[in-house]
Amino acid sequence: MIYLDHAATTPLHPRAREAMLPFLGGEFGNPSGLYAVGRAAQAAVDDARQLVAGCLGARPSEVIFTSGGTESINTALLGMAYAMRRAGAGNHVITTAIEHHAGLHVAQHLEELGFDLTYIGVDASGRIRLEEVEAALRPETVLASVMLANNEVGTLQPVAEIAALLRAYAQARHHRVLLHTDAVQAPGWLPLDVNALGVDALSLSAHKFGGPKGSGVLFLRRATPFRPLLHGGGQEMQKRAGTENVAGIAGTAVALEAASTGIAERAARVRALRELLRDGIIATTPGAQPNGCQVNCLPNNLNIAFDDVESDVLVSGLDAAGVAASSGSACSNSTWEPSHVLMAMGVPIRRAVGSVRFSLGESTTREEIEAVVALIPAEVERARAASLVAGRLAG
Amino acid sequence: MIYLDHAATTPLHPRAREAMLPFLGGEFGNPSGLYAVGRAAQAAVDDARQLVAGCLGARPSEVIFTSGGTESINTALLGMAYAMRRAGAGNHVITTAIEHHAGLHVAQHLEELGFDLTYIGVDASGRIRLEEVEAALRPETVLASVMLANNEVGTLQPVAEIAALLRAYAQARHHRVLLHTDAVQAPGWLPLDVNALGVDALSLSAHKFGGPKGSGVLFLRRATPFRPLLHGGGQEMQKRAGTENVAGIAGTAVALEAASTGIAERAARVRALRELLRDGIIATTPGAQPNGCQVNCLPNNLNIAFDDVESDVLVSGLDAAGVAASSGSACSNSTWEPSHVLMAMGVPIRRAVGSVRFSLGESTTREEIEAVVALIPAEVERARAASLVAGRLAG
Repeated sequence: MIYLDHAATTPLHPRAREAMLPFLGGEFGNPSGLYAVGRAAQAAVDDARQLVAGCLGARPSEVIFTSGGTESINTALLGMAYAMRRAGAGNHVITTAIEHHAGLHVAQHLEELGFDLTYIGVDASGRIRLEEVEAALRPETVLASVMLANNEVGTLQPVAEIAALLRAYAQARHHRVLLHTDAVQAPGWLPLDVNALGVDALSLSAHKFGGPKGSGVLFLRRATPFRPLLHGGGQEMQKRAGTENVAGIAGTAVALEAASTGIAERAARVRALRELLRDGIIATTPGAQPNGCQVNCLPNNLNIAFDDVESDVLVSGLDAAGVAASSGSACSNSTWEPSHVLMAMGVPIRRAVGSVRFSLGESTTREEIEAVVALIPAEVERARAASLVAGRLAG
Repeated sequence: MIYLDHAATTPLHPRAREAMLPFLGGEFGNPSGLYAVGRAAQAAVDDARQLVAGCLGARPSEVIFTSGGTESINTALLGMAYAMRRAGAGNHVITTAIEHHAGLHVAQHLEELGFDLTYIGVDASGRIRLEEVEAALRPETVLASVMLANNEVGTLQPVAEIAALLRAYAQARHHRVLLHTDAVQAPGWLPLDVNALGVDALSLSAHKFGGPKGSGVLFLRRATPFRPLLHGGGQEMQKRAGTENVAGIAGTAVALEAASTGIAERAARVRALRELLRDGIIATTPGAQPNGCQVNCLPNNLNIAFDDVESDVLVSGLDAAGVAASSGSACSNSTWEPSHVLMAMGVPIRRAVGSVRFSLGESTTREEIEAVVALIPAEVERARAASLVAGRLAG
């Protein structure tokens, strides 16, 4: 198998697996236990918290372990918006039209709860315009949430610039607007420093960077207005109740440390493979064209529109040929809808429904990319024929 | 180490571990992926759902995988209460004073959200009175949540009887009241059948029955009014967003199956050990007396009050002697407060703060229990001396 869906999930890093195994064996204690095996579990969680904090430039007390990126995003947006509204700061939230479904559906949920939402659009490259964020700010604005790198097309967003804008706004108007970023796609590919980014909250999903599924991280800057999402025991400094997933937390920390090492070299190598894949496909396949910005983007994410193709048909054909890729974001594969990201970018619907995401990983080789380039023309032709026969694509 | 804190967490069952390992290795796919490794992950989740449903007498579509007991309880209570209120059914919720902190703190959160809560008290054995539930019912009542077996003292609650009461109420008044039970302590010790119990929702935590930490189950009867807690992708039949913790889910199902097998034999054997421990302690240790009902209780849970002792001091001494036990529920160990459960039972505060929970497991042996019985008198004497010297206990 040639696996090119690393943006959906990555294999567990061998060191992360090794870090987890003791806690799936003899080290089974509950960190709340006041005895040896409990203290050992607590120590493992503490060590992991320190390691993660180091990777992000944060304090350990600002690192909350969650069950994944979705929980981190839900916790951040709901927790901050509620706390700000309760403090009388307002009820207006700014986000973008191209957030992952987790961010987008929480935003819609906030609307149900009486919040007023502004969805910032993007240009053809998938990038939001800073001026639009500035124009959306108003005295009732309490929170902005902008993803760092889009999961479907890889376009980077100007998060640090938004943070600077919000700081200037806060100074001029004496009105603080909190900033959250969904950085789920970033580890391993972009340097992550919460102070350089200037964010109040940042969400990560472990299984996107070589950690286990079911584990995530929420950075929450100290003294940020916040209300927990999960109520119960006093775990995670009273910010996230529930017995700690000790094995998952240990694996997450080790994976993040590995992902945070050698980013520049990894990114350069994989970016070259990505361009090889893109240029190879375009050169050999009629009616193929990349979606999204090709410069300010993740080095491992390539989204290509194929004319007159249903992407699911092409993805299935590639699967049969031993290549794993994704039609749109993996999380929405169960519904046949054109990607909201491509729609927001103004990609015509007939090309949006024929778009496939190839996302590379640390393990991806030049041989694999060459093999995929060699496969694509025939697979696209076959998918085109099948899609046209099915008659679901209007001529 | 003699581990007697199985109610806090249990070692991972070897078969659960085995079931997990492939998904921490080569089987790393995202279940949303349309290719082979994604389909394999989806098949594992489907198989696990079927297995869990079989253990509970539920339909697979009624089984939702979560990140643990706390998330299950939060999801059930908030999701059902919100949905009922939105449907105009009312805003009154009944629960008990002895729920786990997850249930209790969600109930308090519901109060913040404008719900009206009734907390049913318990008798000296820790059992709620059915008449109090009946008396609390009113036209605005939308939800009742009563734990199946208390985590601190092991007392069983009349959940099936409450379900019958609510059914009769619904027939007489044409007003439905939903019923949730926190069954976190039950697997392995009590038969669990959602239809025999008559509940609409039931919460489980995998690491309490030999599954991994960071994984839980929520049974939600079909057609039950509900709103998700976590918003995002369409996972878990649109009821719980977030990439599935495939390894955790696989381990959870296998552990629940193991726990659901041979319950009567396991319970009988461990109940005898529990009684041996209780009677041994009482016979040899002055000022020791069990808390809670000794008949209608979990077979593995023994809570004993020691006069003139700070339980943390005793637990630390036992730890040094190689015995792991718990002072109160593990989740509240970070705060020195008398247990809300013992307080609700009317245990005097000076005995509540000297109460220790011993919770046995499948692996507990007669030799271990005899060794603990032999240790206790000296440990209690030592803890008593230390506690009195510290002067924190009023004479």
